[in-house]
Amino acid sequence: MTRPLIFMDPFPRTEEMVYTPETVTALDQLGDVVSHFGSRAPDALVEEVLPRVEIIIGQTAMPRERLDRAPHLRAILNVKANWEPNIDYGEAQARGIHVLSAAPSMAPAVAEFCIGQAIALTRGLPEADRLFRSGKESYGIKGARQHYGLLGTRVGLIGFGNLGRELVPLLRPFGGEMLVHDPWLSDEYLRLEGLVPSSLTDLLTSARVIFVLAGVTTENEGFLDRRKLELVQPDASLILASRAEVVDFETLIELGDSGRIRVAIDVFPQEPVPDDHPCRHSRNILFSAHIAGAMKASYARIRSAMLDDTTQILKGFPPMRMQQAVPRLAEISCSR
Amino acid sequence: MTRPLIFMDPFPRTEEMVYTPETVTALDQLGDVVSHFGSRAPDALVEEVLPRVEIIIGQTAMPRERLDRAPHLRAILNVKANWEPNIDYGEAQARGIHVLSAAPSMAPAVAEFCIGQAIALTRGLPEADRLFRSGKESYGIKGARQHYGLLGTRVGLIGFGNLGRELVPLLRPFGGEMLVHDPWLSDEYLRLEGLVPSSLTDLLTSARVIFVLAGVTTENEGFLDRRKLELVQPDASLILASRAEVVDFETLIELGDSGRIRVAIDVFPQEPVPDDHPCRHSRNILFSAHIAGAMKASYARIRSAMLDDTTQILKGFPPMRMQQAVPRLAEISCSR
Amino acid sequence: MTRPLIFMDPFPRTEEMVYTPETVTALDQLGDVVSHFGSRAPDALVEEVLPRVEIIIGQTAMPRERLDRAPHLRAILNVKANWEPNIDYGEAQARGIHVLSAAPSMAPAVAEFCIGQAIALTRGLPEADRLFRSGKESYGIKGARQHYGLLGTRVGLIGFGNLGRELVPLLRPFGGEMLVHDPWLSDEYLRLEGLVPSSLTDLLTSARVIFVLAGVTTENEGFLDRRKLELVQPDASLILASRAEVVDFETLIELGDSGRIRVAIDVFPQEPVPDDHPCRHSRNILFSAHIAGAMKASYARIRSAMLDDTTQILKGFPPMRMQQAVPRLAEISCSR
Amino acid sequence: MTRPLIFMDPFPRTEEMVYTPETVTALDQLGDVVSHFGSRAPDALVEEVLPRVEIIIGQTAMPRERLDRAPHLRAILNVKANWEPNIDYGEAQARGIHVLSAAPSMAPAVAEFCIGQAIALTRGLPEADRLFRSGKESYGIKGARQHYGLLGTRVGLIGFGNLGRELVPLLRPFGGEMLVHDPWLSDEYLRLEGLVPSSLTDLLTSARVIFVLAGVTTENEGFLDRRKLELVQPDASLILASRAEVVDFETLIELGDSGRIRVAIDVFPQEPVPDDHPCRHSRNILFSAHIAGAMKASYARIRSAMLDDTTQILKGFPPMRMQQAVPRLAEISCSR
Repeated sequence: MTRPLIFMDPFPRTEEMVYTPETVTALDQLGDVVSHFGSRAPDALVEEVLPRVEIIIGQTAMPRERLDRAPHLRAILNVKANWEPNIDYGEAQARGIHVLSAAPSMAPAVAEFCIGQAIALTRGLPEADRLFRSGKESYGIKGARQHYGLLGTRVGLIGFGNLGRELVPLLRPFGGEMLVHDPWLSDEYLRLEGLVPSSLTDLLTSARVIFVLAGVTTENEGFLDRRKLELVQPDASLILASRAEVVDFETLIELGDSGRIRVAIDVFPQEPVPDDHPCRHSRNILFSAHIAGAMKASYARIRSAMLDDTTQILKGFPPMRMQQAVPRLAEISCSR
Repeated sequence: MTRPLIFMDPFPRTEEMVYTPETVTALDQLGDVVSHFGSRAPDALVEEVLPRVEIIIGQTAMPRERLDRAPHLRAILNVKANWEPNIDYGEAQARGIHVLSAAPSMAPAVAEFCIGQAIALTRGLPEADRLFRSGKESYGIKGARQHYGLLGTRVGLIGFGNLGRELVPLLRPFGGEMLVHDPWLSDEYLRLEGLVPSSLTDLLTSARVIFVLAGVTTENEGFLDRRKLELVQPDASLILASRAEVVDFETLIELGDSGRIRVAIDVFPQEPVPDDHPCRHSRNILFSAHIAGAMKASYARIRSAMLDDTTQILKGFPPMRMQQAVPRLAEISCSR
Repeated sequence: MTRPLIFMDPFPRTEEMVYTPETVTALDQLGDVVSHFGSRAPDALVEEVLPRVEIIIGQTAMPRERLDRAPHLRAILNVKANWEPNIDYGEAQARGIHVLSAAPSMAPAVAEFCIGQAIALTRGLPEADRLFRSGKESYGIKGARQHYGLLGTRVGLIGFGNLGRELVPLLRPFGGEMLVHDPWLSDEYLRLEGLVPSSLTDLLTSARVIFVLAGVTTENEGFLDRRKLELVQPDASLILASRAEVVDFETLIELGDSGRIRVAIDVFPQEPVPDDHPCRHSRNILFSAHIAGAMKASYARIRSAMLDDTTQILKGFPPMRMQQAVPRLAEISCSR
Repeated sequence: MTRPLIFMDPFPRTEEMVYTPETVTALDQLGDVVSHFGSRAPDALVEEVLPRVEIIIGQTAMPRERLDRAPHLRAILNVKANWEPNIDYGEAQARGIHVLSAAPSMAPAVAEFCIGQAIALTRGLPEADRLFRSGKESYGIKGARQHYGLLGTRVGLIGFGNLGRELVPLLRPFGGEMLVHDPWLSDEYLRLEGLVPSSLTDLLTSARVIFVLAGVTTENEGFLDRRKLELVQPDASLILASRAEVVDFETLIELGDSGRIRVAIDVFPQEPVPDDHPCRHSRNILFSAHIAGAMKASYARIRSAMLDDTTQILKGFPPMRMQQAVPRLAEISCSR
């Protein structure tokens, strides 16, 4: 029996991220590995592997013509958190080829980060630290009069996909009601998850801590526009965790900077953020540079999920840990 | 039937904290209230109420002589988080007088704050914000290489009283093993709570995130001395949440400041901290000014617990929400 | 230093229940043990140990005169599930002597049994088995038209003590609302436990599965009288788990036997039940002979709790696993 | 815009099960409904709807030729718990047609029933009832010496699909270790669910309560053969909940009847079971006639899931509540 060919073409993922010595050993036991790092694989190499490849790990462009030339292909594991437009998703599905993303493996780290941001915002952690260093701190309730926290607080999740699914169990013991707005999901489905389905307007006006977790598609870009953002109640907290493109970014900065609402931002319309971007001078916003999902543990989870699902697929079983592309939705998904 | 006399003498608690209009109304339905705010009640007033008082809300000194003169006294609700030495605890117990503290009502807010501190330390929130403002941020894994988080991380709780009991449910969904060191509790008791009983040394050497939650007594003052603190593994995180007196504070500052371990501190040996205290210049430590337990929601919880337990006691039922003094332990407890 | 004297007088508990070889070894390390089995210890033996005894394990009568003669006594661990009237509870408390029952160690087994009874009643297990054996079974929905189950079902707990506390976590994942009626507890306390405080009438009329978990006192004997029991909605299920004396037993048998409600009974007004008691011919009721709490695992738990709390008390710490007597309530408690 | 055509052909499901007045109203809002009950729809009717049908609710045979004639078909919702071989699963997938089963909607009721069976077996409920009626009951520990229960007991799940996923949360609060054997799933996947992956042999020899939850395929029929069943430890409990074909049924009856192990059976190789089948005389086994999943609440759940997913699919979103067929596995699945 010939061993399956596994093609590893995961740029911009690096060897450190997805091809550690243990991974090399494990993949070697599953098949013959051809790998390319540092850039997308050159066309010549891709063409060379197509006739025999069974598993592609990475973002290799796979339009219909290439799918035609890859008769043994069983799965494409993109090892990223989003869908690129360089695959013919419908055609892949028609051929029974799994197209999988690593979003579920990044989500736990993001969810944890969101909890940290939410407590930092609502309980005033960064400000308390600054005040102490400057000798202007107030002790006890005098320094905490504006704090509210997550305990018993009504929260809102805009989007309930991979991130929401990881965030909800972390939020659950805080005991607050959890509103969810997700137009892709039915109300009853959300209720069965112990969540309160909500219109976007109801969520924005009634939640005190709002997590923006929605992916961005050609259909929802900028849906959190000025009119919507102004519905948020004064002094509520908003955490932007998924993609900056879903929100009117300038308005969000303005509302956060003025102290109208509390804001934490990990993702930006342009990264790196230009040195002279005005948001750098914002006093009130809690910033981080797209680090919520990126940590060593996330890459360990990606490698483990990738090996697990490759094994499943080669055995003829469905993948269990990575996310399957839904063609219509993958196609409207915006990636960078 | 005469109505019970309730004596409210809660200084340093203020009316805003424990005697809001709703509380006044609720207490009025339970009995006749005599109240004094702004200082401890003068002796003359205390003597006046002793013959008839059934419930004392506050810290009124109650040595044996006064207990002798208060034949109807059923409970002292101190509405604080610690025990003062001005009560004869053994004698009160012998008379069946409940002595109760509000520590359980402050604990949820502290536990939440601890989660925020732990994520802030391990995921680098304050530093990420500083770097972004100074234009020196790195994106994604480049900015997160040193981060670890709570997910799947072995944590250690030093002390498992009111704070631990609130912290554990919040930590549970992060899925890490939870070591506990508490010399007042049996191993089996901790195991039944889903915790791993641990010696202090084992906890310090093997936990990656350590929460110091122990109260301070005449017997344990300074037990986290230099030798013990140096057992903590490099780059682990330590959150000082209960009382500064349990730790060698100077060593803790030194270890945190040097970057040897990550440290968050909310409580100090002296408060306010002197303006020129060297810790104010510490670069790495995350400070806050004793605000973990103090928030409006905590005082609402105190008022609710105080009303509930007063009602219970007046009906002849045991209090359920405040903490009962254990005489021997209340007597060795150090308060300020 | 002299070793503490431990007096073991646990009748009707047997050696097999509370004095296994491992327990003997463990107690030997804690002190000098004097033990008596097979009956209550004779007065002469009791008098002999009083001057030195520190720990009594068992039900030894301890009126005030004996307490006077036991100056070193620190605790009485009754190793039963209820309070006998042979102790001066108030005087024991005044002397700082812990009086402890083993009720919390029996409760998990009872709670599990209750879940089994509730599913058996609502899903028709015993009847399905009988029908199958007689060849009269119907398959699928035809055989299950009258079944309802616990999933999503509103349940009611009458009494929220040791049994309720163990039952609630087992019920929680079934997802139904949990009403609780317990006049000894405040509404807010129950709400903080995630329960719905309820009047007895509301509970009886609106819960579909009712667990009777209340202990019996001189004040509540027979409180579930005919008028109350007739409030239960037709075809609801009622499980009698704590004490038969709280209910009008004849009416309960009548309602169960007629098929008006579904009934499971583990406890009886008289045990053993007379051979000719009419309930033996009841067709519909699910009976068991007071076995809900009694299993080997319960006695293992009792031994472990007894050793743990003896150790705690000898060290000067409060007991953590057994239940402390509340004098006023222990005194009105009815035992047999 | 023309309204979508929904074809309802759900035999053996009846109108009472899947086409209640509320469902009729709800489906009417989604499209034009053509329905047939009481038998599979005649070919003529099927051919009539094929050119326009978008949604099929039921088991209509859909080989490739019919799929060819149904250009607008988007989904087949079989509203059963298993896969019939009358659909070309691979071709349906290639066309992006969702093929969905209602298994997830039946699973909660089965899981609940399993808990009831497990407690009934391990705590001796049916036997206790029989003994009481015959006047031969023993009280307390004397009647419960052989009981063990689920609390803290190591359990084993053979198969972790829809049933397992519902059973695990109900088992979790009992606190025992949960072994799982499922050759379709990776060890790491199971570990992330808080389960202990196990070989079949390890599970059979070490679990004290075993739930047989595996579906039957052409590949696993009879895998629990005599040799395997004899590995089960004496007095362990085995609950057969999914399909009788996975087990050597005669051996299971023999082991249960002899008292070697405790057995509960809800599914049979032939249903109805012949009147003279020897198992009807088995003394020890707890029988029920395939009623674990069948209850009114299950059909309510099926209707709700069917409406939800029909709505999702008509909007272009993926179904969320029913189970998607995996072609290779649906094809080897054995149904009756």
